[in-house]
Order: sequence, then structure tokens, then C-alpha cells
Amino acid sequence: MLALAAHPLGLRLRCFDRSKEAPAKEVAELWTGEYTLEELRRFAQGLDGITYEFEALPVPILRALAEELKVPFAPPLVALERAQDRLLEKELFRDLGIPTPPFLPVGSLEELRAALEVLGTPAMLKTRTEGYDGKGQFMLKSPDDLPRAWGMLGGRPLILEGWVAFRRELSILAVRGLGEVAFYPLVENHHQGGILRISRAPAPQVSPSLQAAAEDYARRILEHLDYRGLLALELFETEAGLLANEMAPRVHNSGHWTIEGAETSQFENHLRAILGWPLGSTRPRGLSLMINLLGQEFPPQGLRVPGLHLHWYGKALRPGRKVGHLNLVAESEAELHQRLAQLRSGGWVEIPTQSTDHFA
Amino acid sequence: MLALAAHPLGLRLRCFDRSKEAPAKEVAELWTGEYTLEELRRFAQGLDGITYEFEALPVPILRALAEELKVPFAPPLVALERAQDRLLEKELFRDLGIPTPPFLPVGSLEELRAALEVLGTPAMLKTRTEGYDGKGQFMLKSPDDLPRAWGMLGGRPLILEGWVAFRRELSILAVRGLGEVAFYPLVENHHQGGILRISRAPAPQVSPSLQAAAEDYARRILEHLDYRGLLALELFETEAGLLANEMAPRVHNSGHWTIEGAETSQFENHLRAILGWPLGSTRPRGLSLMINLLGQEFPPQGLRVPGLHLHWYGKALRPGRKVGHLNLVAESEAELHQRLAQLRSGGWVEIPTQSTDHFA
Repeated sequence: MLALAAHPLGLRLRCFDRSKEAPAKEVAELWTGEYTLEELRRFAQGLDGITYEFEALPVPILRALAEELKVPFAPPLVALERAQDRLLEKELFRDLGIPTPPFLPVGSLEELRAALEVLGTPAMLKTRTEGYDGKGQFMLKSPDDLPRAWGMLGGRPLILEGWVAFRRELSILAVRGLGEVAFYPLVENHHQGGILRISRAPAPQVSPSLQAAAEDYARRILEHLDYRGLLALELFETEAGLLANEMAPRVHNSGHWTIEGAETSQFENHLRAILGWPLGSTRPRGLSLMINLLGQEFPPQGLRVPGLHLHWYGKALRPGRKVGHLNLVAESEAELHQRLAQLRSGGWVEIPTQSTDHFA
Repeated sequence: MLALAAHPLGLRLRCFDRSKEAPAKEVAELWTGEYTLEELRRFAQGLDGITYEFEALPVPILRALAEELKVPFAPPLVALERAQDRLLEKELFRDLGIPTPPFLPVGSLEELRAALEVLGTPAMLKTRTEGYDGKGQFMLKSPDDLPRAWGMLGGRPLILEGWVAFRRELSILAVRGLGEVAFYPLVENHHQGGILRISRAPAPQVSPSLQAAAEDYARRILEHLDYRGLLALELFETEAGLLANEMAPRVHNSGHWTIEGAETSQFENHLRAILGWPLGSTRPRGLSLMINLLGQEFPPQGLRVPGLHLHWYGKALRPGRKVGHLNLVAESEAELHQRLAQLRSGGWVEIPTQSTDHFA
């Protein structure tokens, strides 16, 4: 999607991936190899800037590379380093005065027991690193779950997060270029099994002060890290206000609606920000629903729903794998519901009832 | 632009061009060669459908190819054949009851003299074939211009077209799939030196009956030719109603605004139509101006104008060559004028005053 946004701007992407099957190969120059400094150095020659859209990357190697380069490397690696470690990430939020759910580091069974006493149950035990789409997590419903939780995750650096009664999950997409910052409207996200299923943008029932709080938190991160590029900040909306859950220093799934749903897509704005170009308008265009396609194709007949846009990634189908998404756009609430009803009635895509109830 | 529209739909394009520098190479598989049946036959192997977006093609060879294929070949070659010959094209319009400016075939100096007596001056002498962007045309302002006109164009099959006082040039983009037809709103086009400079969509001051007349004419052509794909029909608006000027059996420059300006772009709808997929909504999204970039780059700083989208084709710069276009989108007339004023004040792109006067 970055490459598709790049071409009309007169930009060409060279992509690095460990797999020769990376979808980028259809729309960009694909280099494959391992993440060694030597290979990345060769890859970087002749480029005007470097970015990443995948977080499981070796920061020390990238840092060595970035220090050698005379072109922008963005977002900054300090952001990636924080995002890769749930503890460092939440400590960053805390240090910047951004509220978070309560959390404690867990390095041993003893520490887990102590942390559980402080935070109570239910509580979520998570690996500090390598968690993704709900993996590396164990929900402790009572202290009795402690041995099982430790049996599953123990031995790795962990974090225990206290339970928060939240109304919904929101995210804000923020972008910082050279001396300018822009924010998209808050997005409402619905997960299932830890995986994003549906985003709605702009999120309904967002007061100006809620939007302002989200922008304030995102801005603190951007400015503290001297950030360049797009950042997604995931938030819980609670009675006590917004709590920061995690951040992603990259274009983000909860921003995929922007392709048709905003005046400038997150992909285009990310590229513009990195190159120091002026940012584009983040104003929404109508109302959007983004529906992830998880391990399933979408039949062409379904495209008869007006305002529905297929974004197929060209990946091989595997159960539960994000292989594409649908953006459904409408001009009004009534029209969105009508179009969603038409989409649901066709039975072309599984849309969890829980998340659509919220919209219907 | 067809390839960029194809990828999100899960489609991949294989393109045939005589030049190894064709911009398609960045986003599609590019085959190069001459238009021989042998080469095209190899090219066609394994494809699910074939289309074209360039009219200077050898119809007999394509016809032989299409007859061998078991996959859709669209738009039909009978449409291309008509579009390649201004006389056959206008005869088609006349046969279908679609009003046109007066015209007469010209095969000799004698016929030119006789035609000029019937049609009067001013009149436009044009080559029947190979005219493009204002080339192969001579305007006769008085009978005295006859020798010069003949000196320049004589010897080739010609057509003389009587002068028509028209208010403006409009075009309609129509698309026909399997048993469905859809129309975009009328577009207003401004040319300079025979080359399209600016399109505005939807065209202002279009009554429902004007739109209906344009749709009626386009529909007659689509149905008569058992058409599949996108068709552009260029029309003159006169006191006596719409007159058909010419048609283009392909995605068209006056439809480039649809990328951001309509619910489904002309490129996506063309692909859908060829494959027999349902057509997408042709409803406009706000108001659009499309501005061609002729032999000039557009600097990134200009992208600070909100709602402005650059579409750069990746072609080498040559004076007057269409190397890209800008789509300027706004939600209201006032906003469009404000954004256009900002674009003009930056001085990043030449916008002929004549055409913007009309909008300002």
C-alpha cells in the first residue's frame, strides 16, 4: 500500500524482505536477504530515504545503518525500540504524563505473585517483546491461574497489566513531518481473538475534548522522540478518560480506512513526512468502516455494494491471516448502515455481530 | 493507472508496449515488441482478459487475435475501428440518431470545394485517421484558405466539419459490463491548442435533461456495439442541445478526476466491466478539477494545497507532453475556489486563465 501510494507521487520504492513472496514485488523493486548490516548497506545505496512498516526488526543493526546514512531514516529507531518492548513503551507513556493502565514488570515467579497482589485480578500477563495480534498473552482471572500463566510465559521478560474497564478501544493516527504535525480523527477498533476485525472512522460519539486529549498524548510522543512519519497510538476509553495501551511507529491497520476515507491516506502522508514534504489534509471524507479479511477471499459479486472498496494484498491464504481489507464509505450514518446491511446480507464476508451491533 | 487500480482488486496486469520505457513497467509486467499476431499471441497466453488504452493499434491484427481467444477482448474492436476514423465515427452517431456537427467526406480538392460551399466557413478540415490532440487539423476561415488547407492535408482521406457555435465542451464517461450500464456525471473540458488542460466534474450548470440526453446518446452507442468497458463521449453543448464530437473506446483523460472524485474510478470500473464483475457506484465525491501537467514537473511544496492529489506518470519530460495530472477535490463550490486560488497563487503549475475564469 505504501508503494501504491508512492507511484502517483513520482516516488519508487525499493523494498527489503526476507521472503521472495512479499506482495511488494508486484509494485516495487524487491530485495530479499537477511537483516545483516552488509546486506542492508547494499540495499540502502542510492535511496533518498528509508522507512519500515514491520516491527520485528533488529534495532542495533538498523541503528548502525542509520548512523552511516546521509538520508532520512524514519520513524526514529528510538520509537521502534520502545514499541518492541511493552514495558519500555508504557514507561515512556508514564514519563510523558500520558495515562496508562496500571502495569508492573515481571522477571520471576516471585515478582508475578507480588505484582498480582498489587494489581488484583483479572490481569493480563504479557511478554514484553514479540507479542503481536494477541499472541504471548495470558489472562489471569484469579490467583489460581498463576501457575498456568507462568508455565506458559515464564522465563521471558514479562509485564503484568491490571484490568481496566474500558468502554471501547480507540486509536489515533498522527503524522509529523518537518515542523508540522497532523492528526486524523479518532478511530474505533473492534478486535476478536486479539486481532483487529473492524475499524470505524471517524469514531462515533467523540467529543472535541476527547479528540484533543488523544492529539495531546500523540503530540507528546512525536515531539519527545523528534518523530518523523506516521504513528498510531492505541487508547482505551474509560470513565476516567483515555489510557494509552500501545503505539505503532508505522502505518497501521487502524489507518487503512484512510485510503478512501480521508483527504490524504496514511500511506501518502507517511511518505511525505519522511521526505520533508508538506503533509496532506487529514480531514475525513464521509464515514468509513474498515473490515479486515482474515484468511478469506472476497468474491467480486460483493463489490456490488456501493462505496465498497477491496484492498487485496496478494498474499497466500492461510487461516486467520490478514490477506486484505474492505473499506466501506458512505456520506451519512443512514447510508453507511444501509450499505453495511447490504454487505452483510450478501454473506460474502464474516463480520462479527458484536462489532456490527455497535453500528446498527 | 489501470495497473494501480488493478492491484487492490487482486488483479495483475501484463502490458504490451513498443517501448521498454513504458511507465507500466513500474507496476505491471511489461512485454515489449511489435504489434504482430505472433507476438501478441504469445503475450495473450494465460491472460483472463485483454483491453487497450491507446487507439493507434492495428485493428485487423487485433481482430485475428480476438477471434482466437477464449477470454474477453474489450472494448469491442468495432468501437476502435469507428473511433480511428472520424468519418465512420460521425456516421455511426448519425445512424444512431445522435446529433453531430454537420460534416462531409473529402477525398479530393473538388470534394473539398463542394463541401465548403455546403458547410460554409469557418470550417475544420481534418484527417479521418491519426488525428490526436489537435494534430491533423486545419481551420478554414474563408474560401481563400482552401489551397493552403489542401496543401497541408490533401492526399489523405479527409472530413470537413461545419462550424458550430458551442457554449462549452462536455464529455460523458459511460461504462457497460454484463447487462449493466452506468454513467458518470457530465464533465466540462477546457482545451488549449487542441490539448485538454482542465476538466471540471461534475460540470456546473447541468440540468437533469442535459445529463439524460448525454446518457441516452452514450447508451445507444454502448448497446449498438454490444460494448464492454469504459467509453468516453465528447459533446458540444449548443443552443440546439448536445452534439457528439467524438468518442474514445477506453479510459479517458476527461475521466482522470474519478480517482479521488468518484466513488469508483474509471480505471476500476473499466476492469470490472471487462471481467463481468458488478460495476461500482459512479457517484461523484465532492467537486473536482483535473489539471493536466504538460511537459512540466509539479514541486512537492505545491502539495500543501488541501485536497490536491498528484498523479505523476513516470514519463520523461518533453515539451507539451502529458506527464501527469493534478486532481483538486473539495466539498463545496466555495472550498474549491479557495483551494484553486491557493494553487494558483503558489505558481507551481500553469493554469490557463481562460479556463479558470470560468470557475472563479
